Amino acid sequence: MQLLKDRIISDGVAVGTEAVKVDSFLNHQIDVGFMAEIGAELRRRFGDIPRDKVDKILTVESSGIAMACSAATAFDAGNPPPVVFAKKELPRTLTDEVWFTEIMSFTKMKMTAIRIAKKFLCPGERVLIVDDFLAHGQAAAGAVKLVEQAGAELVGVGIVIEKAFQGGGELLRKQGIRVESLAIIDAIEDGTITFQ
Amino acid sequence: MQLLKDRIISDGVAVGTEAVKVDSFLNHQIDVGFMAEIGAELRRRFGDIPRDKVDKILTVESSGIAMACSAATAFDAGNPPPVVFAKKELPRTLTDEVWFTEIMSFTKMKMTAIRIAKKFLCPGERVLIVDDFLAHGQAAAGAVKLVEQAGAELVGVGIVIEKAFQGGGELLRKQGIRVESLAIIDAIEDGTITFQ
Repeated sequence: MQLLKDRIISDGVAVGTEAVKVDSFLNHQIDVGFMAEIGAELRRRFGDIPRDKVDKILTVESSGIAMACSAATAFDAGNPPPVVFAKKELPRTLTDEVWFTEIMSFTKMKMTAIRIAKKFLCPGERVLIVDDFLAHGQAAAGAVKLVEQAGAELVGVGIVIEKAFQGGGELLRKQGIRVESLAIIDAIEDGTITFQ
Repeated sequence: MQLLKDRIISDGVAVGTEAVKVDSFLNHQIDVGFMAEIGAELRRRFGDIPRDKVDKILTVESSGIAMACSAATAFDAGNPPPVVFAKKELPRTLTDEVWFTEIMSFTKMKMTAIRIAKKFLCPGERVLIVDDFLAHGQAAAGAVKLVEQAGAELVGVGIVIEKAFQGGGELLRKQGIRVESLAIIDAIEDGTITFQ
């Protein structure tokens, strides 16, 4: 997605060789109009899958929520698939049985539990995972695990920015999972971001 | 908003006398189409404020993100105000100076820090706060504090569900803050939710 690559170049900030900050438009401040374009492009990437073959869009709180909602709207604004976001914190009100796994966050340097109430991810449901970043693949692999636990069916993984050099995309694709990334970064060096 | 009250009655679950679970459509699973209606109603409630008098929509991660984005779209789909969400966790990549405060979460029974990079909340910016719940007012008051720290101007607080009996709304209104709540709950007793 050229518009996204341009935006990463103009507004993103390379941090060392591992990270790129896109907090001015994606995951701290959100450019809501741009998010609608992200959602439309994610929908185009999975354009062969009709709306009625996607029962749920799954993401992990909190950065993925905005783009998951935009993608849902792009699937069918009049009848969007519901978005479910896996929760990292356990609210007192979440007393239901949950699907549960742990993921390592390299950004936060700690293990984080993610969970979904079982009633919102059911056997046989066809699930599209959407997230902002695919780096080492921990969050996506965790979401895939929740889908497997539920006995749901994974239709694919839609990612806004994949950092190919951190191997998460390869990890998922080797398992036969369809991964569509709107921008794939091959390297971050000396403040320069190189796309695939 | 009658549609919201109806939905709370049909799909919400009263938990004791303090809480109502709306995780089937608002803050765990998201009904994205309904969220667009929520956004439109929030915009209507602040209908006297032209688009160009709102520079930012501010929310607190993560439940408020979806409705803040919908409200932004409802303000002007072609040119929505940016949404900024205060972060609870400190990512390694957030190395900028931040506005910072602590709030008590009664749902999670702990103090939580919330922070916004200073560059995304600036002196003189006109800010509308949007959130899913207004209960004891901790999250909203925290967001208000961040606005004050930044020297920004608060135009109002838009809330989806206010639990009036927990006093947060009164707290804010007494300070002269304009609060618009789409549904106001007066009491939760014996599984019955009573609206104002």
